[in-house]
Amino acid sequence: MEARTDRSGLTNAAILDAALAMARAEGLESLTIGEVAKRLGLSKSGVFSRVGSREALQIAVIEEYDRRFLQAVFAPSMREPRGLARLDALMRRWLEYIRADEGQGCLYVAGAFEYDDREGEVRERLLDGVTRWRQALRRAVQQAVETGEFAADTDAEQLAFEIDALITGVMRDTRFIRDPQAGPRAWRAWQRLAASAAASPSPHR
Amino acid sequence: MEARTDRSGLTNAAILDAALAMARAEGLESLTIGEVAKRLGLSKSGVFSRVGSREALQIAVIEEYDRRFLQAVFAPSMREPRGLARLDALMRRWLEYIRADEGQGCLYVAGAFEYDDREGEVRERLLDGVTRWRQALRRAVQQAVETGEFAADTDAEQLAFEIDALITGVMRDTRFIRDPQAGPRAWRAWQRLAASAAASPSPHR
Repeated sequence: MEARTDRSGLTNAAILDAALAMARAEGLESLTIGEVAKRLGLSKSGVFSRVGSREALQIAVIEEYDRRFLQAVFAPSMREPRGLARLDALMRRWLEYIRADEGQGCLYVAGAFEYDDREGEVRERLLDGVTRWRQALRRAVQQAVETGEFAADTDAEQLAFEIDALITGVMRDTRFIRDPQAGPRAWRAWQRLAASAAASPSPHR
Repeated sequence: MEARTDRSGLTNAAILDAALAMARAEGLESLTIGEVAKRLGLSKSGVFSRVGSREALQIAVIEEYDRRFLQAVFAPSMREPRGLARLDALMRRWLEYIRADEGQGCLYVAGAFEYDDREGEVRERLLDGVTRWRQALRRAVQQAVETGEFAADTDAEQLAFEIDALITGVMRDTRFIRDPQAGPRAWRAWQRLAASAAASPSPHR
């Protein structure tokens, strides 16, 4: 029906980039192939033929978001020594990511409230990402127990929940309240959290 | 154009109730006069003549949500003595409200991520509600300082932020992850938070 669209500069990466920006600003649910095509000045059928379906585009956007988060926050933090140094690095980079990115939302936090009552593959993919992330946090906390920095009876699941809640709160305060103090406050909260989990110095050390 | 709608049982309260349920399940942005009318079996013009505009309906829904929250959570907690007892009551009732209501979302938490990039009166109304609520939390924390239960150097703004972040996190875990442990975990987090703010027992007492 339509002429083959093959302008220079059109790549799947450009589609993904536009779709990701749109999903971060307006929500994954607002993402449509037609709107992405319009923003790139492409034909709807041209974009459609590349992405397959709206749902496939939503999933691809989540995967691209994951890649960027891993690259900016997770992977460099994993190069720090296990334990508190790694957790500190993770929190520092995560908060920096949120601060630098204040114009853009987190697909996981916003998506949690978009897809709490919506079933389907997008929800499943988001839930899978949150679950894997929570596991990574638990593991990082557990390692701080193993290094002896956190008390042996530290509840890693509990701490991972509290860290993740803190991040959800700082995102809300940064993006909705637009409070520049949100990041520093979250860092102080993390310091307090880490201190409360710290192993008491042994009387024999 | 349409016959006057005046069925028995049609009241502004019924419209508000249906609109609130819809907004809590699908978001304030998804609220339309047409859909509310359809759900109640009313004419669109009949609903329109009662609510005035979509935005007026959104604002009315937020006000109704406030009334219910005040009645279920805030007002009864205010009857507890100032200080830690009142804060404990607030947290207990708030978590109970979230647990009992798991089928229904919080307009403020979900709305924060819906309206972070949307300007307008609904955003302003939500922001106003969040700000007043944060002030109420700060005041409750400050009172626990005044009773001597929290340390004199407690940063009330910081603690209010941490409490609100915790609530945001427990809502996400309850509604999106659907984790029945979210409430108990949030209660433990609150206990830890309160303990970390507690005044050290004076050596002279």
